[in-house]
Amino acid sequence: MKKIAVINGANLDRLGVREPEIYGEETLEELVLSLSSEAEKLGAEIVHFQSNHEGAIIDKIAELADAGVRLAIINPGAFTHTSVALRDSIAGSGMKFVEVHISNIHRREEFRHTSLTAPVCAAQICGMGREGYFAALRYLAAL
Amino acid sequence: MKKIAVINGANLDRLGVREPEIYGEETLEELVLSLSSEAEKLGAEIVHFQSNHEGAIIDKIAELADAGVRLAIINPGAFTHTSVALRDSIAGSGMKFVEVHISNIHRREEFRHTSLTAPVCAAQICGMGREGYFAALRYLAAL
Amino acid sequence: MKKIAVINGANLDRLGVREPEIYGEETLEELVLSLSSEAEKLGAEIVHFQSNHEGAIIDKIAELADAGVRLAIINPGAFTHTSVALRDSIAGSGMKFVEVHISNIHRREEFRHTSLTAPVCAAQICGMGREGYFAALRYLAAL
Amino acid sequence: MKKIAVINGANLDRLGVREPEIYGEETLEELVLSLSSEAEKLGAEIVHFQSNHEGAIIDKIAELADAGVRLAIINPGAFTHTSVALRDSIAGSGMKFVEVHISNIHRREEFRHTSLTAPVCAAQICGMGREGYFAALRYLAAL
Amino acid sequence: MKKIAVINGANLDRLGVREPEIYGEETLEELVLSLSSEAEKLGAEIVHFQSNHEGAIIDKIAELADAGVRLAIINPGAFTHTSVALRDSIAGSGMKFVEVHISNIHRREEFRHTSLTAPVCAAQICGMGREGYFAALRYLAAL
Amino acid sequence: MKKIAVINGANLDRLGVREPEIYGEETLEELVLSLSSEAEKLGAEIVHFQSNHEGAIIDKIAELADAGVRLAIINPGAFTHTSVALRDSIAGSGMKFVEVHISNIHRREEFRHTSLTAPVCAAQICGMGREGYFAALRYLAAL
Amino acid sequence: MKKIAVINGANLDRLGVREPEIYGEETLEELVLSLSSEAEKLGAEIVHFQSNHEGAIIDKIAELADAGVRLAIINPGAFTHTSVALRDSIAGSGMKFVEVHISNIHRREEFRHTSLTAPVCAAQICGMGREGYFAALRYLAAL
Amino acid sequence: MKKIAVINGANLDRLGVREPEIYGEETLEELVLSLSSEAEKLGAEIVHFQSNHEGAIIDKIAELADAGVRLAIINPGAFTHTSVALRDSIAGSGMKFVEVHISNIHRREEFRHTSLTAPVCAAQICGMGREGYFAALRYLAAL
Amino acid sequence: MKKIAVINGANLDRLGVREPEIYGEETLEELVLSLSSEAEKLGAEIVHFQSNHEGAIIDKIAELADAGVRLAIINPGAFTHTSVALRDSIAGSGMKFVEVHISNIHRREEFRHTSLTAPVCAAQICGMGREGYFAALRYLAAL
Amino acid sequence: MKKIAVINGANLDRLGVREPEIYGEETLEELVLSLSSEAEKLGAEIVHFQSNHEGAIIDKIAELADAGVRLAIINPGAFTHTSVALRDSIAGSGMKFVEVHISNIHRREEFRHTSLTAPVCAAQICGMGREGYFAALRYLAAL
Amino acid sequence: MKKIAVINGANLDRLGVREPEIYGEETLEELVLSLSSEAEKLGAEIVHFQSNHEGAIIDKIAELADAGVRLAIINPGAFTHTSVALRDSIAGSGMKFVEVHISNIHRREEFRHTSLTAPVCAAQICGMGREGYFAALRYLAAL
Amino acid sequence: MKKIAVINGANLDRLGVREPEIYGEETLEELVLSLSSEAEKLGAEIVHFQSNHEGAIIDKIAELADAGVRLAIINPGAFTHTSVALRDSIAGSGMKFVEVHISNIHRREEFRHTSLTAPVCAAQICGMGREGYFAALRYLAAL
Repeated sequence: MKKIAVINGANLDRLGVREPEIYGEETLEELVLSLSSEAEKLGAEIVHFQSNHEGAIIDKIAELADAGVRLAIINPGAFTHTSVALRDSIAGSGMKFVEVHISNIHRREEFRHTSLTAPVCAAQICGMGREGYFAALRYLAAL
Repeated sequence: MKKIAVINGANLDRLGVREPEIYGEETLEELVLSLSSEAEKLGAEIVHFQSNHEGAIIDKIAELADAGVRLAIINPGAFTHTSVALRDSIAGSGMKFVEVHISNIHRREEFRHTSLTAPVCAAQICGMGREGYFAALRYLAAL
Repeated sequence: MKKIAVINGANLDRLGVREPEIYGEETLEELVLSLSSEAEKLGAEIVHFQSNHEGAIIDKIAELADAGVRLAIINPGAFTHTSVALRDSIAGSGMKFVEVHISNIHRREEFRHTSLTAPVCAAQICGMGREGYFAALRYLAAL
Repeated sequence: MKKIAVINGANLDRLGVREPEIYGEETLEELVLSLSSEAEKLGAEIVHFQSNHEGAIIDKIAELADAGVRLAIINPGAFTHTSVALRDSIAGSGMKFVEVHISNIHRREEFRHTSLTAPVCAAQICGMGREGYFAALRYLAAL
Repeated sequence: MKKIAVINGANLDRLGVREPEIYGEETLEELVLSLSSEAEKLGAEIVHFQSNHEGAIIDKIAELADAGVRLAIINPGAFTHTSVALRDSIAGSGMKFVEVHISNIHRREEFRHTSLTAPVCAAQICGMGREGYFAALRYLAAL
Repeated sequence: MKKIAVINGANLDRLGVREPEIYGEETLEELVLSLSSEAEKLGAEIVHFQSNHEGAIIDKIAELADAGVRLAIINPGAFTHTSVALRDSIAGSGMKFVEVHISNIHRREEFRHTSLTAPVCAAQICGMGREGYFAALRYLAAL
Repeated sequence: MKKIAVINGANLDRLGVREPEIYGEETLEELVLSLSSEAEKLGAEIVHFQSNHEGAIIDKIAELADAGVRLAIINPGAFTHTSVALRDSIAGSGMKFVEVHISNIHRREEFRHTSLTAPVCAAQICGMGREGYFAALRYLAAL
Repeated sequence: MKKIAVINGANLDRLGVREPEIYGEETLEELVLSLSSEAEKLGAEIVHFQSNHEGAIIDKIAELADAGVRLAIINPGAFTHTSVALRDSIAGSGMKFVEVHISNIHRREEFRHTSLTAPVCAAQICGMGREGYFAALRYLAAL
Repeated sequence: MKKIAVINGANLDRLGVREPEIYGEETLEELVLSLSSEAEKLGAEIVHFQSNHEGAIIDKIAELADAGVRLAIINPGAFTHTSVALRDSIAGSGMKFVEVHISNIHRREEFRHTSLTAPVCAAQICGMGREGYFAALRYLAAL
Repeated sequence: MKKIAVINGANLDRLGVREPEIYGEETLEELVLSLSSEAEKLGAEIVHFQSNHEGAIIDKIAELADAGVRLAIINPGAFTHTSVALRDSIAGSGMKFVEVHISNIHRREEFRHTSLTAPVCAAQICGMGREGYFAALRYLAAL
Repeated sequence: MKKIAVINGANLDRLGVREPEIYGEETLEELVLSLSSEAEKLGAEIVHFQSNHEGAIIDKIAELADAGVRLAIINPGAFTHTSVALRDSIAGSGMKFVEVHISNIHRREEFRHTSLTAPVCAAQICGMGREGYFAALRYLAAL
Repeated sequence: MKKIAVINGANLDRLGVREPEIYGEETLEELVLSLSSEAEKLGAEIVHFQSNHEGAIIDKIAELADAGVRLAIINPGAFTHTSVALRDSIAGSGMKFVEVHISNIHRREEFRHTSLTAPVCAAQICGMGREGYFAALRYLAAL
């Protein structure tokens, strides 16, 4: 069965808790459940990981790559704009990533318009809310 | 029946003709046919428009807005990076847009990393090839 | 009778339609009628042209210059900030232009603070709403 | 009777003295007389103030605001490009300002293209010579 | 008895008058009274000066330095961001300054994020409202 | 009893060890003891946390927010200038933060003049040495 | 017979009309006639196109590419500095372009020193007046 | 007898008082006396003016120009780097200025490397200490 | 026996695994063994530490400094370009560092040309492959 | 007989030696021979000079100017982007220069897009290979 | 007898030849004669050197330093703005330099406003024509 | 026997003479002797060249390349930051270069942080004093 990693970065553990009027009331746990259920229909399996620690995400990507996982959805959160280390980790993993952002980062502060990770991902989706994860999932599952 | 506009900007008439090794061999016409067929399944109808003329696209958006179309997929091509007029047209239309790019613009020249239109669209998808149009379609059809 | 051209650029056909809470409910047609009526009182005649096509405006300026029109009011809309071609057209026309903006462009996005066309116009008025056109008209009519 | 302040900043006391071939031979005093006479026709009264001292202008704006004056024409001269203090004074006054420049600042040195005060004024007119003051006056008198 | 100067720059005479919903209803006079009373408890004496004139503040700092005052609280207002002369005056005075801003300047316009005077002051406090003055006072009184 | 978090970021565990001629000989532990004792007098209680791990601080802020702590003093150390993730964590916590720096960051390298976290904190104090923590404490305790 | 396209962009229809003291009195029509006559001598044929519409030029390049034309001289006029769409059109045409400017663009305004189209053309000639077209013609005819 | 104005800007009244180890112990008064005495030998007369008020200097330059003074030495102090108003005053005076700085401004902070006033002065001398004034005096006296 | 720390940052655990065609097939473990063996010959001992966690590296440097280690080789990986915290940690450690990069960072992306850590290290070596570590070792061992 | 100087700057002595796959196998000597032969046909004579020494080229231009040579072709090589001295030499020579580059400098590194010398030359040709020299020769010979 | 070097850089051999309407008709040789004669009166001796070769000037400065010359006037010409090597040579010579420019470099192109050499010279004089050399001479002779 | 060139640029002839407290008292001659002796042990031979003339270094590199030398150590001195010509010479030589700087250039002025030559060298070493040459020698000798 095809494994698809879903990796969430800084502060995404706060989904449904932090600013629910913006990010909705569904928690990260609930989102992952829905993604898993959708993945199952597409003949795939979700491996989820969330951390506020840049280093933990890099460790996990190396572990996933070693375990033969080849596809991943990543929402690096704020690391998108600051982490060259994460960029190198993605680039060196040999995995295919789709970068997802819940909000439209182009409507936000200037420093959020630049993504250090997008150039080493295959694709980027932003502004579609949680639907972005599902669109990425369908795209990767169909490869 | 819900109408969804699909608007393609500069040089997208060359799909399947220009650099097929990069953009694939499917023509724009064929892509639109596939989109229409997918739309039908989703209970929606595609209205397609392509032009290399910035002004013609602005005229068309105004016409669509006046005709009550409320949803649109737009791949502005190079106008993404240069057209404030198109930005104003989108912003003033009262319509909800998803911006789509076939290639990952973040891997290309510096000047392609900035989008003048994305901040006035709801969402942006890039790098998923033609699948980006379908992801946008499903997102809009489900609203 | 002295002819004064009034040229409106991108999206100004949407006056009274687009965002009426900001731009008012008067349409462009009604504005032109008022300007014509005011011009008449000042012994002048209005020649109006609006287009969302940069090229059509440049064609029209050349035509007006050839027809001996010497004075013009221009609201280039978004072309103000992007069109070197329009700048060259104005500079090469031998005509005297007053640039008008309905809103105060200095209160808006950074990229709207720079005008490519203002340095080749005689004067610029912004933020006075539609009154800007009348102030420009009176100024040109009195020359 | 409606009071309209006319405030002139640095070096505008030199009108008619400094570079008359550019700025004309009419003195500031004469200009104010003409403005007063025009104001009278419009049912308004001019209160004039000129200073080369940024602080004196700020003091005067506070005084005018306290005295209930609600409308003002301001030509800050060089303070336009350097005075955050004047910007704050205008913004905090509760008065409506029109910024006027005799010359077309967009034709001059790069540093004159940016106005610190325009974003807190309602409108800006430049390049119409002394007519700019009259256009501003008519605009404010008609409010 | 230890003298502590309190120097307020441009527009701070408008405290309690200008935008009371932001800056509160207490006037500058009342603030100074409270500060004096607090100073007394701390065995110090307040010397207050406010001016909208950059030059007057510089004159005053020289006068205070000559009179042997060694400590000062300064809220330069907008001069913070534009006055190299004030910076030089502070640096040359031999006095120890704490810079205070009522609002959080880092939340405001980009140009307010840079302080020309902070590098020559000992410390800077912003965003604590009028409490900033009291914190500075306590800090200086305890030296 | 009102709880006030005190959060110290990168390298602040080295207080009293690293460069004592600059930062003094008092250790972080001793500083926290003094703060706790001062807090007690003000009817508040200090919850202290220090880490060189950006992710650990973000985890802690989430934990504090969930535990109902509403006030915090933060000295992010070098994270001030690089961590968008910490900025988002602060902004999303619903807590009120005062940012403190022991040294005057405006006297140091250019890159230390910009704070990513200050715009989402209520206030910022720098250059007052360890007194900055006490000033922040008094400010928060008095709310 | 070898076909060589000659494409002229914005405002080049004004040759001989606009600022003849700079650009000479020969019209565009006359220039094209001379080029055709020179081409004939070199065993080639000129296909000329001029437009002030960016979109029309892009349409024409696609049409020429489809018709098997492989060589082109282009003077994009002001589009040189603003049109990413034209750049993409040239790059995607499979044709070999020589970019020509009548004046020395490096002597003019800063924004004219950058060419968006030159990197996708084979060569660039500027400052040789109308001779630039002939040099380009000879170069292409000799390939 | 030829009059030569000597104008000193912000903080130059502190010569001999402020940082004597850098600027020497001679006061401004003493410097002016020496300059007057040297001027006398050269058949010229010094008119001296110092102010910390930008506006007062502008007023004085206008007054000197009206009084027929044609030559001036100016050390604008910090106004060098911030005052467009002073630049305009110098440019509009019809007088010939030599700008003098006691220290070598190119060795100091980046923002002191740019002079707003130098482009409208005839010459600039910096780094020669008080000798700079004498060199300027001799230069002007010999014209 | 002289202890020399060898500290490797983000993604260097992937040596020999990630992109072996670029970085070679030798693993980090093997490299450390070789370094230890070389160190022994030079009368020194290697203490190795690798982490993808910026905070863990900072913790380790503090620990090493406290344990009296005075010399270190560091390859911060991507932290080189983003970590002010690591810079402060190095600067405050009292240890002498040589920064090593396996590849020539000046041949790579623009953002890799700037090192935040190099200014607080004694020396920097890049582009010599794994030999860089040995050159650094010999340099430090010989001090 | 009309003399036309041909001046080649840094590294152009390596033509035919350095990177022949890019620059071709013809040596500089052979190129000059061909140019001389072509010049003869056009009734002109070539004076050639090559140096890797900026100063030697400047000396030579002065010598040529003194000898009455009025026309020159220059390929400054890398001096194009760095030599203000060469720029001044060209500008002060009273000679008419055409700048030639063998490759299309707009396709190369960013720093090669700016030419310090082009603004003081009459024209610039790049990307036409060695043909650029011949086009320049014909242009100058025909003057 | 005190030796004072006078060093002239690129293109200054053309004084009196190049653009005499700007730089005057006096040749460099004549200028040096006048300087020598003036030096003699001041009890000093001029050692003159001019070269268009940056390297030759650096060689000469080293030679002068070795010969015990301690004072120098330098007009680096265009090297002012481009030569870090000359800057290092001056800084390392142990000699005291006064930088002289004949024209007011602040009135010329932007790139001439920055001097790489001024920060390592004691003083800078510009815009006083050839008088600048004499002012520098008197200053150095009087040390 | 393997030949390794050692090339020293601007001002390196002053080693042991210029600022000995920084650069040590060993002269360049002595350094080259040590290098030669070390090379001999490694079975290699040093060819040394130093010049303050950029052109002479470029001439020498061409000569070395023609003579079959394939390895080189270069300390370009200040040419590192300014010489595109040297960069091209290195890139075109077909030789392998290691760039060496005695001091840590990242601790010095901003403009010394950028190296034009490093991207075309294989490696760069800085801050290791004269040891840098030996490390480079060992690296090249072992290839």
